[in-house]
Amino acid sequence: MDLIQKELLEEIADLHGVPAGAYNIRANGAAAARNTTANIDIVSKEDKPGIDIIIKPGTKKESVHIPVVISQTGLTDLVYNDFHIGDDCDVTIVAGCGIHNSGDGLSQHDGIHEFFVGKNSKIRYVEKHYGNGDGKGGKVMNPKTIIHLDENAYFYMDTVQIKGIDSTMRETEADLKDGAKLEISEKLMTHGEQKAETQFAVDLDGEGSSANVVSRSVARNDSYQMFRAKISGNNACAGHSECDAIIMDNAKVRAIPELEANNLDAELIHEAAIGKIAGEQLIKLMTLGLTEEEAEEMIISGFLK
Amino acid sequence: MDLIQKELLEEIADLHGVPAGAYNIRANGAAAARNTTANIDIVSKEDKPGIDIIIKPGTKKESVHIPVVISQTGLTDLVYNDFHIGDDCDVTIVAGCGIHNSGDGLSQHDGIHEFFVGKNSKIRYVEKHYGNGDGKGGKVMNPKTIIHLDENAYFYMDTVQIKGIDSTMRETEADLKDGAKLEISEKLMTHGEQKAETQFAVDLDGEGSSANVVSRSVARNDSYQMFRAKISGNNACAGHSECDAIIMDNAKVRAIPELEANNLDAELIHEAAIGKIAGEQLIKLMTLGLTEEEAEEMIISGFLK
Repeated sequence: MDLIQKELLEEIADLHGVPAGAYNIRANGAAAARNTTANIDIVSKEDKPGIDIIIKPGTKKESVHIPVVISQTGLTDLVYNDFHIGDDCDVTIVAGCGIHNSGDGLSQHDGIHEFFVGKNSKIRYVEKHYGNGDGKGGKVMNPKTIIHLDENAYFYMDTVQIKGIDSTMRETEADLKDGAKLEISEKLMTHGEQKAETQFAVDLDGEGSSANVVSRSVARNDSYQMFRAKISGNNACAGHSECDAIIMDNAKVRAIPELEANNLDAELIHEAAIGKIAGEQLIKLMTLGLTEEEAEEMIISGFLK
Repeated sequence: MDLIQKELLEEIADLHGVPAGAYNIRANGAAAARNTTANIDIVSKEDKPGIDIIIKPGTKKESVHIPVVISQTGLTDLVYNDFHIGDDCDVTIVAGCGIHNSGDGLSQHDGIHEFFVGKNSKIRYVEKHYGNGDGKGGKVMNPKTIIHLDENAYFYMDTVQIKGIDSTMRETEADLKDGAKLEISEKLMTHGEQKAETQFAVDLDGEGSSANVVSRSVARNDSYQMFRAKISGNNACAGHSECDAIIMDNAKVRAIPELEANNLDAELIHEAAIGKIAGEQLIKLMTLGLTEEEAEEMIISGFLK
């Protein structure tokens, strides 16, 4: 793995070396390194690109890292990664994709991740998308995440796209059985002429299931963001979605959250707000000696923290 | 006008007799009575069914009533009513439609109302939809309202559909120039197997324009409600929409509010909540001696008041 790839890896997975536990590192469309443990197996798919990650029931305090780095211009990479997680697990999964494009070709990564989470299992899923490189070639990522939660499973998804992705269509679908709980935190920043579209669809099928989807985003320059979140309450359940966007410069933001109550005992709420940085906040920081740009940066980084 | 029609008129327009000011009463698809004033003229359209209401600039403290009643089964009535309102007016407009259907035929009223509101004018627009009658024939209403607000115009729309409409598609569109202000209050109740769809689309085109769209609804029995509200901020403006729905029995409710910020200085917010009547509220009222049904009725009527 070269220096550029190592830098990308650090950025997307906080990895300074080989991670502990199970991992599968994909670089420029091919497997670069893999490790399995007694409880976590990783097997390459035979019918299509991608891997199966198989986590034994009862696996606790283990982690799986499956970062993808692309440093070759003009490469389009599509992978299907399936996570088969047994009952009673407690596992952290870190995925992420970094693209460095210094050429003129389009570099694109489409990752389709499907999670089958067993009863009572707790999963923390961290996903980070990042792009850099001075080339004129586009950096495109279309992550799709499908989550199936069995009874009383808990899934926390922390998804971040801070910089450098020209175009993205971020789709997440989830269905929840009795007592299952889903929490999603999205942080998104677009700049230049970037386009980002986010789409969540959550089916609260089980009794006592719940979902909380929170998205915070900043749209700068001439970028465009579209946020959609649909929560369907099909049983006694609780759903909440929230979308807060800061708009800057000539950016445009659209938010279309959707609630669907199909059951008397479904309680669904959403909120959304789009606006620019409050003038008072800027002035306060500027009286402390910051320039307007520094004050803006401070407010944005606090908002996306 | 017969007794049934008089009852409908009372229900939809609070009219116990002939109203003061200008009016045009339409019964069973034909003009039943009309009055104009020195400032308000009402002219039948020649190219299609409907009327032009022409209000002179500077008209203040006057009212226009244009109720529609249908007591004949199997009648489908379509009207185009255009309101040409001069600058500096202050006028109350009361529209409404009552259908009594005791037969087996479908009774339907589709009213398309378009408002051209002059500069600095203040309009209060009240619209009430009501159906009754024991017949098997459907009672259908599809009101469409299009509002154009010139600079600094103010438009308050109070729209109510409490009972007896089997199917409705309620569309409202508005565009606002500099300093114009729109307020919409919707109250909706559906029961039985009724279907109600509401769709608002507001374009905040002018600098300093603002819109506040508030919808409260109760869905009972096997009824279905769909709420859509799109607010587009195309200038320095403020937009807020809110949808609160109480779900009962086997009813289903869908809410899709949409915000679109196309300008740095657009501030847009929306909130929505769907849920059943809170148990504590019911218990509190029941300890005061009310039955569960009485307690529910009291909460609902307070919510829709």
